[in-house]
Amino acid sequence: MRITLLGSGNVATHLGKAFKQAGHEIVEIWSRTPANAKTLAIELSTRYCGEMSLLSPNAEIYIISVSDDSIREVSAKFPFRDKILIHTAGTSELNIPGLSGVFYPVQTFSKQSPVDFSNIPIAVEGINPEVSGKLLELAGTISTKVSEISSQQRKTLHLAAVFACNFSNHLYAIADKILQSDGLEFEMIRPLIMETAKKIQTHSARSVQTGPAIRNDQITLRKHLEFLENNPALRDLYERLSQSIINFD
Amino acid sequence: MRITLLGSGNVATHLGKAFKQAGHEIVEIWSRTPANAKTLAIELSTRYCGEMSLLSPNAEIYIISVSDDSIREVSAKFPFRDKILIHTAGTSELNIPGLSGVFYPVQTFSKQSPVDFSNIPIAVEGINPEVSGKLLELAGTISTKVSEISSQQRKTLHLAAVFACNFSNHLYAIADKILQSDGLEFEMIRPLIMETAKKIQTHSARSVQTGPAIRNDQITLRKHLEFLENNPALRDLYERLSQSIINFD
Repeated sequence: MRITLLGSGNVATHLGKAFKQAGHEIVEIWSRTPANAKTLAIELSTRYCGEMSLLSPNAEIYIISVSDDSIREVSAKFPFRDKILIHTAGTSELNIPGLSGVFYPVQTFSKQSPVDFSNIPIAVEGINPEVSGKLLELAGTISTKVSEISSQQRKTLHLAAVFACNFSNHLYAIADKILQSDGLEFEMIRPLIMETAKKIQTHSARSVQTGPAIRNDQITLRKHLEFLENNPALRDLYERLSQSIINFD
Repeated sequence: MRITLLGSGNVATHLGKAFKQAGHEIVEIWSRTPANAKTLAIELSTRYCGEMSLLSPNAEIYIISVSDDSIREVSAKFPFRDKILIHTAGTSELNIPGLSGVFYPVQTFSKQSPVDFSNIPIAVEGINPEVSGKLLELAGTISTKVSEISSQQRKTLHLAAVFACNFSNHLYAIADKILQSDGLEFEMIRPLIMETAKKIQTHSARSVQTGPAIRNDQITLRKHLEFLENNPALRDLYERLSQSIINFD
């Protein structure tokens, strides 16, 4: 397919490379930040376009990969009415004027680390079966885990991701702080964190739950709460997470 | 060194294999559960001992690897006074009569998955410099990440591990439940969970925090809270974790 990328951040970069590798043609790259976009255009052997009104009508799919709060602004400036214009965000609605679909790779991207899309779930949604079909086809060229989900389901998926990833990462940060308070290195629990994430790749999280709360080990729970008594916010969080484990059904 | 294992669970099994591979001699295996112990004894080409009073005095180090609440009971039955008797638990104190040290591999073990000890931090503690030295030496034969920490630090380490691992795993379970409520598979976020854990192997957790709370994206936060309004416990947890991210310093 002929694809134009609107944006040059992490998602645009990784998607662009994956599309090119899968044999698609990147027609051009538009971006408000010329530096990134020019580098990416060179990497993908295509051209950079700095002015939305000068976009070539030659692509079949135009993919907006900008920060969530700029999607509306970018789609408002999009000059064509008969082209498939989609975004790649988990959170944003599809009911933005001009948009006809969503192409959401369920992953967190960093510029430095390479990405193997074949195992990354891609959730697509189109305003009509034709668009959905096209997006499923495109997704299928870079990933083996493709599905069509509704806007409502995408919201659910995003909320689940916040719990599993954003909140987990925050717990890692809390653990780091606890370790530092006693002169210990975060390095001491990195392998444990890795193994915890690895375990649920083949098991359900519920079936591999360990720790004092699931054993209802009141002695350890009490000791930990005492330990945290000078930090009411953390103590409270410990208590609520433990209670949530105990009550989980 | 000549080592006797008291216990035949996950930790004893993985440690026993690692010690044998590093060239140590496993003198014998005592356990209250003959079936496991006999299997392990065959695997490690050593003998099984079912009666603590019949233990050979031939080992230099006797390692208790049983559930936390049985350590006291096992050490009370230990027949020698001049031998190094240690346990492998993160939580338990060192001040149990008869015990002279702790050898704590900071990892979660499952029987089915093989373990590479070389990257697993091992925290040791001895009642005197001689024991500490012996334990550091032993740990150094199977791991490159060996340190001596106090009982107090081990408590801190265990609390950090509860936040980073037990609580994270519970968040994965919550995410799974949220997905199921809308007909979505946990498989859709497994790669994201893996990548989140991978990222902090080379970065600090704080520096890679993402999500609506760290952006202070009140619109998304409000939407998520509305989504959870029929589940007060989860709503509360979402609110507190988000607030903790916003307030984190």
